Amino acid sequence: MLRLRPRPLTPTQFAPFGDVIEAVGAHAIEMNDGRFERFADLCRIESDGGAGIAVGIVRSKVATSLPYRLDKIERHPLGSQAFIPLEPCRFVVVVGPPREKIEPSDLRAFVTNGRQGVNYRRGTWHMPLVAPEIGQEFLVIDRIATEPNCDELYLSPPVVVLDPWKRASDRKGLHV
Amino acid sequence: MLRLRPRPLTPTQFAPFGDVIEAVGAHAIEMNDGRFERFADLCRIESDGGAGIAVGIVRSKVATSLPYRLDKIERHPLGSQAFIPLEPCRFVVVVGPPREKIEPSDLRAFVTNGRQGVNYRRGTWHMPLVAPEIGQEFLVIDRIATEPNCDELYLSPPVVVLDPWKRASDRKGLHV
Repeated sequence: MLRLRPRPLTPTQFAPFGDVIEAVGAHAIEMNDGRFERFADLCRIESDGGAGIAVGIVRSKVATSLPYRLDKIERHPLGSQAFIPLEPCRFVVVVGPPREKIEPSDLRAFVTNGRQGVNYRRGTWHMPLVAPEIGQEFLVIDRIATEPNCDELYLSPPVVVLDPWKRASDRKGLHV
Repeated sequence: MLRLRPRPLTPTQFAPFGDVIEAVGAHAIEMNDGRFERFADLCRIESDGGAGIAVGIVRSKVATSLPYRLDKIERHPLGSQAFIPLEPCRFVVVVGPPREKIEPSDLRAFVTNGRQGVNYRRGTWHMPLVAPEIGQEFLVIDRIATEPNCDELYLSPPVVVLDPWKRASDRKGLHV
């Protein structure tokens, strides 16, 4: 069974899949008479066919612990989808390149630094969102869907997403 | 000098000016096999002329205490503008209706409950964002501006935005 170890999320590593949404880098500009610095235009919002953009909030009802058996990934062929935590939270994402056929070995896992959000490019395969705690809220920015816009792909056998903070020696005894 | 006392932000009171972005109400739907509840489509994103949507982050460099002398308001005639705090934060907004001529007496002040964000409708007059603490981050969703999209209006005399948590008796001695 394929095991994926989440790596720290960086814009360079994540570039094939989308954008990291984070207030870092040298691009800040002053705003409101110097009271704020602004990190502008951090991701590319995609919405095919002139559809609008929906802004919503999702709240976790389940705490998902790691290691985690991932048996399904999904993609949205008509638009991007962004998730930004509404309070600091380190969460794990699993992504695959935005193409028709992918293999489990194409998947990559990342863990955020607690302040990062992600924007999946249109068509990027991804693990449905999981949160480490109940009640965690994420802002979601995606396409207003008036037609089907979600493809699912079942993984058989499932892929195991490892706990990025457990040392290898701790993992040997886990039954995942 | 006109004094504005911020009132608790509610969708009904804020409706003439825009949307309250918050995960409340009976509209939640299940998502990701029941692991999340989703509060979908919480605000109306406006972007005239087919321009795109920018997602950015602003971070406060100044802590603004109340009472506060407000001497300038602004509006964006070509699109909406949303601010959502990236960690819980109670902040104060001042808004005026989206019309050409307004008087200081048209202005209303609100204070959020700490988890709410706001979306100013296209053309809604508003106080430039202020934050109670340094380092507070807000996600900003607005129009990608390729042409001027900000009108400013100077208030003379300024309007005083009161501290919503100070009792009236405490305010008498303040020189604002």
